[in-house]
Amino acid sequence: MRVLIIGGGGFIGQKIARALAKRGSLRGAPITELALADLAEPAAVEAPFKVSLLTADIAERADVDAIFAMKPDVIFHLAAIVSGQAEAEFDLGMRINLLGSVNVFEAARGLGTNPVVVFSSSCAVYGGEIPREIEDWTGLNPQTSYGAQKAAAELLLTDYSRKGFIDGRGPRLPTVTIRPGKPNAAASSFMSSIFREPLQGETANCPVGKDYELWYTSPRMVVENLIRCAELDAAALGENRCFALPGRVGSIGEMIEAMRKVAGDEPVSRITFEPDQRIYDIVIGWRPHINAKKATDLGLIADSSFEDNVRYFLEDDIRR
Amino acid sequence: MRVLIIGGGGFIGQKIARALAKRGSLRGAPITELALADLAEPAAVEAPFKVSLLTADIAERADVDAIFAMKPDVIFHLAAIVSGQAEAEFDLGMRINLLGSVNVFEAARGLGTNPVVVFSSSCAVYGGEIPREIEDWTGLNPQTSYGAQKAAAELLLTDYSRKGFIDGRGPRLPTVTIRPGKPNAAASSFMSSIFREPLQGETANCPVGKDYELWYTSPRMVVENLIRCAELDAAALGENRCFALPGRVGSIGEMIEAMRKVAGDEPVSRITFEPDQRIYDIVIGWRPHINAKKATDLGLIADSSFEDNVRYFLEDDIRR
Repeated sequence: MRVLIIGGGGFIGQKIARALAKRGSLRGAPITELALADLAEPAAVEAPFKVSLLTADIAERADVDAIFAMKPDVIFHLAAIVSGQAEAEFDLGMRINLLGSVNVFEAARGLGTNPVVVFSSSCAVYGGEIPREIEDWTGLNPQTSYGAQKAAAELLLTDYSRKGFIDGRGPRLPTVTIRPGKPNAAASSFMSSIFREPLQGETANCPVGKDYELWYTSPRMVVENLIRCAELDAAALGENRCFALPGRVGSIGEMIEAMRKVAGDEPVSRITFEPDQRIYDIVIGWRPHINAKKATDLGLIADSSFEDNVRYFLEDDIRR
Repeated sequence: MRVLIIGGGGFIGQKIARALAKRGSLRGAPITELALADLAEPAAVEAPFKVSLLTADIAERADVDAIFAMKPDVIFHLAAIVSGQAEAEFDLGMRINLLGSVNVFEAARGLGTNPVVVFSSSCAVYGGEIPREIEDWTGLNPQTSYGAQKAAAELLLTDYSRKGFIDGRGPRLPTVTIRPGKPNAAASSFMSSIFREPLQGETANCPVGKDYELWYTSPRMVVENLIRCAELDAAALGENRCFALPGRVGSIGEMIEAMRKVAGDEPVSRITFEPDQRIYDIVIGWRPHINAKKATDLGLIADSSFEDNVRYFLEDDIRR
């Protein structure tokens, strides 16, 4: 079992790599090789099998072919230009999120082995003129270039799978919070930083009101779900390979109170509330009320409370 | 007002060209130039303004740039690899239906004038695990590569419009029947040929049963609607630029009886019924029960009976 993680330098890619190192097997077979690929060389991961660290620009087909030379059986395609950046740099988003994804699907098809491709899509595919409660068959109606590029790639993933070129699985990730590390160019960056920075003794600003509701998942849960997506039997997935992952709905205010329960008043006092119209205009188009029936039926899981998310961060990710 | 019709050699492109020649104006301005572009040089059209006949492979960006040299104010993008061919020749479909459409949107964006782009999408974007009755917000769930490529291009059209790069309109065409000319590689080809060939004194085969239901429109109606799509105010369209055109639902049996009412028993006797699994497998995934509310609210229109469709064919298109 050879595994390739594209976007292997990102925090989810690194966490999947460490989880695979701990498991030692995937889809019932021992892992013999893991390759982590990213624009810059990914951090090394200790494992009981060979780990390669590769660089690639997935918009360049030759780069993609080079990282596929290890002939992976399972590919995690996590590489993306995130929402805020894809909105500001449209051409870059098209290059990586759409053309890059096509290159990955084409290279996987080129193996001729119908490999498993787990593609991380996003709740940013929803929005606009659709009903409040989102079902598995509700239309993708993205309100950002990031969402549009992800949604277009989803359609191709399902079609490549129907044709038997790849065995695709396209889970739509809820907002992942509390992310470790630093703020990034994602419009959702504040949805982690308003908890992470205060828990690490720093201030952070919340650019939206406390009544803003989001659909979220913890890093632990998303890593577990992405691995479960790789493990699923193709027969159980049905025709449409893309579906919302289970998540929880919470308002910023409720989540802040959950942090207070776990970590006391002091971190909460470090949050400021300065509105930011550019961020607001992007995230207000996202939609939190999602009935992830297909994913739940497939055995994928959600957090039980945001208090857990805070505890997971303190256990796994807080800056030491 | 300069107009470019990509796919201008096809029967819809030619009919739009003739309709524009008769109208003489579009969006309230006199037409000064019309360019028809296609893979092979389109047939000439008589008009009271300059008509250019161009060739281009839209998968080649340089070709697309060349046909955009006339700086069109309105672009009709009708060029496509049709359903049966895109299913058989996957790479060609990706090249023209997806990459070609991106090239057209990019060239239109490159004009810097926010030009109107009318993109003909298709009812083939619907299918599979979605409710029987399709609303404007029902998910695109194509069951063919053609449908997947059209749906992906739709998402980009809406996003390019949101960004202010182009002023897109992406009507999803019902099956157009009765088409003039000869059978083609579209899986829907029989939906015209079982009427057209018998009305022209020849036999034709129906590869599906009489209870098969389709969502259809006449050539007259689709040409009128595509021109109305170009005329619409951007403000009236809302965020999502793609929507189902109004159509009628009819079973093959009902449509045959409508032809009998208009043209008598003889044409009906020329239809044979030999099942064809390859065609059936494609068209069974299409969906006829579509509530085209947005398009109807926008003033777009449907036929009043299939008898009209038969009459239109006899008036406009029967081989003389």
